[in-house]
Amino acid sequence: MTWDINCDMGEAFSLYKMGDDEGIMPFITVANVACGFHAADPMVMRQTVAMAKRFGVKVGAHPSLPDREGFGRREMKMRPEEITNTVIYQVGALKGFLDAEGLALNHIKPHGSLYGMAAKDAAVAAAIADAAAVFGVPLYGMSGTQHEAVYPARGLPFVGEFYADLDYGPDGFLVITREHAAVDPQDAARRVLRALHEGKVTALDGHDVPVRAQSVCVHSDTPGSLAVAKAVFEALQPAKAAD
Amino acid sequence: MTWDINCDMGEAFSLYKMGDDEGIMPFITVANVACGFHAADPMVMRQTVAMAKRFGVKVGAHPSLPDREGFGRREMKMRPEEITNTVIYQVGALKGFLDAEGLALNHIKPHGSLYGMAAKDAAVAAAIADAAAVFGVPLYGMSGTQHEAVYPARGLPFVGEFYADLDYGPDGFLVITREHAAVDPQDAARRVLRALHEGKVTALDGHDVPVRAQSVCVHSDTPGSLAVAKAVFEALQPAKAAD
Amino acid sequence: MTWDINCDMGEAFSLYKMGDDEGIMPFITVANVACGFHAADPMVMRQTVAMAKRFGVKVGAHPSLPDREGFGRREMKMRPEEITNTVIYQVGALKGFLDAEGLALNHIKPHGSLYGMAAKDAAVAAAIADAAAVFGVPLYGMSGTQHEAVYPARGLPFVGEFYADLDYGPDGFLVITREHAAVDPQDAARRVLRALHEGKVTALDGHDVPVRAQSVCVHSDTPGSLAVAKAVFEALQPAKAAD
Amino acid sequence: MTWDINCDMGEAFSLYKMGDDEGIMPFITVANVACGFHAADPMVMRQTVAMAKRFGVKVGAHPSLPDREGFGRREMKMRPEEITNTVIYQVGALKGFLDAEGLALNHIKPHGSLYGMAAKDAAVAAAIADAAAVFGVPLYGMSGTQHEAVYPARGLPFVGEFYADLDYGPDGFLVITREHAAVDPQDAARRVLRALHEGKVTALDGHDVPVRAQSVCVHSDTPGSLAVAKAVFEALQPAKAAD
Repeated sequence: MTWDINCDMGEAFSLYKMGDDEGIMPFITVANVACGFHAADPMVMRQTVAMAKRFGVKVGAHPSLPDREGFGRREMKMRPEEITNTVIYQVGALKGFLDAEGLALNHIKPHGSLYGMAAKDAAVAAAIADAAAVFGVPLYGMSGTQHEAVYPARGLPFVGEFYADLDYGPDGFLVITREHAAVDPQDAARRVLRALHEGKVTALDGHDVPVRAQSVCVHSDTPGSLAVAKAVFEALQPAKAAD
Repeated sequence: MTWDINCDMGEAFSLYKMGDDEGIMPFITVANVACGFHAADPMVMRQTVAMAKRFGVKVGAHPSLPDREGFGRREMKMRPEEITNTVIYQVGALKGFLDAEGLALNHIKPHGSLYGMAAKDAAVAAAIADAAAVFGVPLYGMSGTQHEAVYPARGLPFVGEFYADLDYGPDGFLVITREHAAVDPQDAARRVLRALHEGKVTALDGHDVPVRAQSVCVHSDTPGSLAVAKAVFEALQPAKAAD
Repeated sequence: MTWDINCDMGEAFSLYKMGDDEGIMPFITVANVACGFHAADPMVMRQTVAMAKRFGVKVGAHPSLPDREGFGRREMKMRPEEITNTVIYQVGALKGFLDAEGLALNHIKPHGSLYGMAAKDAAVAAAIADAAAVFGVPLYGMSGTQHEAVYPARGLPFVGEFYADLDYGPDGFLVITREHAAVDPQDAARRVLRALHEGKVTALDGHDVPVRAQSVCVHSDTPGSLAVAKAVFEALQPAKAAD
Repeated sequence: MTWDINCDMGEAFSLYKMGDDEGIMPFITVANVACGFHAADPMVMRQTVAMAKRFGVKVGAHPSLPDREGFGRREMKMRPEEITNTVIYQVGALKGFLDAEGLALNHIKPHGSLYGMAAKDAAVAAAIADAAAVFGVPLYGMSGTQHEAVYPARGLPFVGEFYADLDYGPDGFLVITREHAAVDPQDAARRVLRALHEGKVTALDGHDVPVRAQSVCVHSDTPGSLAVAKAVFEALQPAKAAD
């Protein structure tokens, strides 16, 4: 029994770089690939999908609100059908590159504020589910939120995520901060193993809170993120996809 | 023996309207649907695909250079792999909506300057063909240009277009003008029938020039375009797709 | 004593049209010109400023949230300094065209959701005021909202607007609907004159509510808007700027 | 007698970084600040202008073709009035931030393909000059090109640039390569001094070619660019602006 390891990938754009995709690919099993609305462009998407293929990493779509300037991190009030069609557009575009490289779409994981809005607003989660239903793939999200409440109710597999390198509050929810502090790779690996085997993580106040997850999320753009991914990968020893 | 009738569709955007899509749908068999780079947005694309389905009209992709402000009509120097991936992105996005509505992708017809650049530059035509090969669909274009030379050589079906409402020069090529003059619907229908049955059209200088085509292109945004489409449709009596 | 008459202008984009700017110019004294974020592009802005000059109409900036696809009508969570700099950017761009045509910037009137967000959120209103302070011009807005509370407190003249063609609720606030119903031009003109001379308007429930305004806002894109503007202009007989 | 030292600045965007602006500011006297079309956004522009002010560096506008995805490096066929208005828009936007920080606009230097197109096409150079005339500032460019031929003929001061870290061909023109090789800082400084005092540079074939310049351009995003700028600055010892 193990978890897959997912990471946001392909967030470069134009001449701009973001994260060390090539460095982290050996240590993940699932890539959430940006679809051109918060990051990426057609060249970046093609190269990211091709790179994932080379490393035996499965590819999911990482669609965003239409806000490149804000990197998809600014909430926008959109009608449900706008959200559904915005997600279909982006997932379809990514699927074009998967078709080009002969890969299948593995899942959808909404990005940034779209992820956050869906966590707390059932109508947003349902709008995303309506898009995912077109492609028939699981949705990644956070347990204990509308992600978990809505997606399965719409008939879509829900994959809960555990965050290797972020703190949990006493309420069991992630503590989101603007800046991520560096974490010790071995600590992160131990946390992940305990979450996997015991279903628990120690919150910031020292108490244990329960964890329900089937995947661990690592980052590629935070200080020391590569070492964290490597330690988590070695602890979990998940299988990579055959080429 | 008859031709299909294709028309550019779904070129609205945001609150803006363009052409009378609903008015012209009864008189065409194939829609070239904008993919969000020169026109359209996810809502417009979804609605256009749904409308085409309602009218039994087949849907192809109408991808463009990335130039919304110029409506895809300004040439841009892009590298071949940029063109290929730009087209894959757009066609993939459209396919998302076709999947949502249960339709198949019928063809690809490049828009505006991308169409024009491919007509005269084999490298551009080949870059487009590389994208079309991912989806395995025919490419629409103009006979006697690099469209016809390159697409079949890359193993892709080529569908030549005859323009019902534009003039041909003595060289057999379309005379492109900024403003389209209104044409008489019955004249247009007669031109189309003659092109279909005799393979000829009278050029601006009064001489006949040969026509090689399998589809007739009508417009939805020019003066009297609806009446032209109706007259051409009634002359050709092509079959509509079953729902 | 009279009011100026303001109207949103220059909301075309690319090949798309919006409203009858040329038709309404004779009947307004102040144009709120779109700055390229919800509508307009550099060509449209130049032409709109040149047209306003020709008609002796003063020009203000009509900046928006960065949301062309949503026509600036979708709320976005932006930090105050993002709002300030987003407004400075747009107003500066418009000023470039005013410089080119030899006109002065008359005022700033935020567009769509930026206007609505500022009405209810003092931090948004203050962020807009910080931008307006750079240019030293009045801000147009709605009496009884944070517009009126915040702008003058930051040392900026506030110009309250009365809406000729929209209904007021019993709370004295506009009733915003997605679709505007056509209004009778003479009714609109009478409403405006009563608001000007008596400071009152009859709300939807039949009771009078007070009006504090120095400008009347008319539309150019609603059914019969031109006739309304004409009737209001003739009733008010405001002076146009000398060329 | 000395030259000013100019550098492209403010090319970050959203969460993306580009070059070490803060590191290079001490060693330049003139910043060419991106205006949001190939790079930068309102936040980046504000911060860059404020940083230039802090370092006593003068600010010019660095407008681009409307091609963020291509970083302004893909040629686009635009009509002259489109170019003029596109440049006015961007320069006006930058001027908004200069107004906010109490600085004057120093000059305009077109970016990327707009610079390259103007070098060889008099109509493009004239379109840019029409925009610069609105603001009454000098245009930076390359001697021996249409920059030098057209700008002064339209009554605008022309400032020729010498490139400290790029090679010149035997024709006296820059050799533009996709990748910049690292150059030795002291070599670069010696080249600059010789160009300044003798009006000559050694071309790639070993022969001297003449240099006509009033400014030296350094980069901030190439390997070792900071050391090059420092060496050139110390060799030239140009004055910085008083705060």
